[in-house]
Amino acid sequence: MKTVLLSVGTELLMGQTANTNVVYLSQELNLLGVDVLYHYTVGDNPERLKKLIKLAYRDCDLIITTGGLGPTQDDLTKEIVCEVHGDKLVVHQESLKNLKKMFRKMNKPVTENNYKQANMPSRAKVFDNDQGTAPGFALETDGKIAICMPGPPREMKAMYQRRVKSFLEDRADSVLFFRDIRTFGIGESQLETTMLPLINGQTNPTYATYAKEGESFLRVAAKSIDLVAAQKLVDDKLPEIYNLIGEYIYSIEGENLPTVVGKLLIENNISISCAESCTGGLFASTLIDVPGISRVFDRGIVTYSNRAKMEELGVLSETLDKYGAVSKETAKEMSEGLAKKTGSNLCISVTGVAGPEGGTTKKPVGLSYIGLTYMNQTKVIEEQMRNVNRKWNRNRAMLTMMNAIYRLIRGDK
Amino acid sequence: MKTVLLSVGTELLMGQTANTNVVYLSQELNLLGVDVLYHYTVGDNPERLKKLIKLAYRDCDLIITTGGLGPTQDDLTKEIVCEVHGDKLVVHQESLKNLKKMFRKMNKPVTENNYKQANMPSRAKVFDNDQGTAPGFALETDGKIAICMPGPPREMKAMYQRRVKSFLEDRADSVLFFRDIRTFGIGESQLETTMLPLINGQTNPTYATYAKEGESFLRVAAKSIDLVAAQKLVDDKLPEIYNLIGEYIYSIEGENLPTVVGKLLIENNISISCAESCTGGLFASTLIDVPGISRVFDRGIVTYSNRAKMEELGVLSETLDKYGAVSKETAKEMSEGLAKKTGSNLCISVTGVAGPEGGTTKKPVGLSYIGLTYMNQTKVIEEQMRNVNRKWNRNRAMLTMMNAIYRLIRGDK
Repeated sequence: MKTVLLSVGTELLMGQTANTNVVYLSQELNLLGVDVLYHYTVGDNPERLKKLIKLAYRDCDLIITTGGLGPTQDDLTKEIVCEVHGDKLVVHQESLKNLKKMFRKMNKPVTENNYKQANMPSRAKVFDNDQGTAPGFALETDGKIAICMPGPPREMKAMYQRRVKSFLEDRADSVLFFRDIRTFGIGESQLETTMLPLINGQTNPTYATYAKEGESFLRVAAKSIDLVAAQKLVDDKLPEIYNLIGEYIYSIEGENLPTVVGKLLIENNISISCAESCTGGLFASTLIDVPGISRVFDRGIVTYSNRAKMEELGVLSETLDKYGAVSKETAKEMSEGLAKKTGSNLCISVTGVAGPEGGTTKKPVGLSYIGLTYMNQTKVIEEQMRNVNRKWNRNRAMLTMMNAIYRLIRGDK
Repeated sequence: MKTVLLSVGTELLMGQTANTNVVYLSQELNLLGVDVLYHYTVGDNPERLKKLIKLAYRDCDLIITTGGLGPTQDDLTKEIVCEVHGDKLVVHQESLKNLKKMFRKMNKPVTENNYKQANMPSRAKVFDNDQGTAPGFALETDGKIAICMPGPPREMKAMYQRRVKSFLEDRADSVLFFRDIRTFGIGESQLETTMLPLINGQTNPTYATYAKEGESFLRVAAKSIDLVAAQKLVDDKLPEIYNLIGEYIYSIEGENLPTVVGKLLIENNISISCAESCTGGLFASTLIDVPGISRVFDRGIVTYSNRAKMEELGVLSETLDKYGAVSKETAKEMSEGLAKKTGSNLCISVTGVAGPEGGTTKKPVGLSYIGLTYMNQTKVIEEQMRNVNRKWNRNRAMLTMMNAIYRLIRGDK
């Protein structure tokens, strides 16, 4: 299917919002073997939108719109798509019911403008929205298909996964299976270089490397007539892949590092507490995103001030004076103090220079120390990160903590 | 000038690269008063590219392309633009000289394919590239202007700032000033409804509402001959805007709520500590993103387990038994216990049901209690959020905490 992704929203043309929807949809559609020929973006302008839809149908069979389905006056995507397809809008009872239910749950009256979200083209296949108030739909006329989804990425992604994907799969002629092989501790270009023996001869499966927020991963994708055959093409390559980059791999299921670590803690019933300085609660707040973590996660302490380090964790004032807050010694006393206080099986601490200020020649921005107290033994890891910016440095420190736990539980080294 | 941004590159259609160029250029062009009507993205395909350029010139005077100027065979933007403009490519001596110089600096021989980067349309105004090998250019024919820039963001941005901006400024007839008026506690559709008296009669300034991660904001934008005059058009409307939505506004400078709250704490020298249950450290880790916050932020305690609530904060086991961990009473004891322990001027606590599990009829997912202990007084706020998902609920609870502090310091109610 030749496809146009059509994004609707003046905020995109103002540069106020990055268009992450097209990135997501392009990746997903490519996996289904759907050819994306164009991305178009237009503002909340009915004439221009109509022009683009007509243009798109000249050389494509499928347009996927995002945005312009909401309750406000400039939300006109549905109306225009309906008009181009020669259909008319009617009240969709199921959507109306859902809308009322949603507002009841929020304890808010349905304002008049909200009702229009329950109007749908009479011939449409409606996709309900479990994350927001605007449903989506597919409308097909003479072999030309429009799929319309809401603009907020969270709503769009959920609708795509729950409804649109299977709608498209039924129409695709081959299927693609892929594995995201996730690694930590190897940069993207290094990952690509190491994988060259496989990348150079690639046909089916294909290999692509990606970098995202301090982690690198390898996508291995194969096309075949069915999912089982496609998966076999991918999995047959796993031994060779492990041979090249096995030491860096922590998941071949596409799970992120915090999820893998959280599951390991739960499975092994290892209770955990954390003491954070430079990451300021990021480790705790990331870990508790893992479902079921409350079974093992006891508490986190964000000891930002020196006083807090002493009072909460029993770090000695002499240690802070002699070695500084960012030091191997402080990290050790932090995790040991936490273990003494909580009795958690595993206590992890971090202290570092997140920047942009506070770095010195001896302790530059990006330096961090991670203390791990486990089975009455404490190990401190020193890590000098590439200094990108405060947010990145903190995220990277958090991931390094996760990786340290992963290695500890897996018994590496 | 009515404008199309045309991005060229198959990697964009594959979703391998997010199109940050259009975000940057849209922002910059809007500030110059240049109307961006469309974004188009096309792969490295000459026929489709030609089609889009011709289409763009039907209702626009300016197209700005990024990508497809490099040395490889699929880099064809220059050739196609040249063809549409009825011009021909000739060797541009200055660019040739620069190219040779650049390769000398890299200590590499100029490979044959690189020479084509020094070919330019004969009538073009050439923009040199101080960050890479491919120069850009502007080509004008019968009032239609094409500006072509390289695709790598670093090269494009430098070329825009050094060359393209002044080229456009000479041609722009107005400038735009806008304010993002940020609100909390009012949904986007409610915001629009409330603003209708101004939105309905809008000409200059114009009004648009946006929603982003639990906050809604209003953009007020005006065009005029210079920045001072444009800002006056916007600011003259501020009294009317405050009259309609003043109670929800926390910033007219476009700052987000955590930043506004962090600055208020620093300015007023109010020391703060926090005790978090359902948000799991998100409040602390968000607050410490504010520069200079270390002057007032003492510590954060993530008391996830009941034991931690008792041990760290002195919450009574009878309170937990009788009212539950998610209760007004527990929130109160959490912030009061924290105040007793830390002596911070302001202590804030939160306990709630983040979901997806753990909700009951009496205490549904999305319910949270926020305790604020300030000047020996404790206030507890009950908030029932719309249950979207765990992540959203936690983010919303964190923002509600920020908003509670904002109101407290500002002395509202």
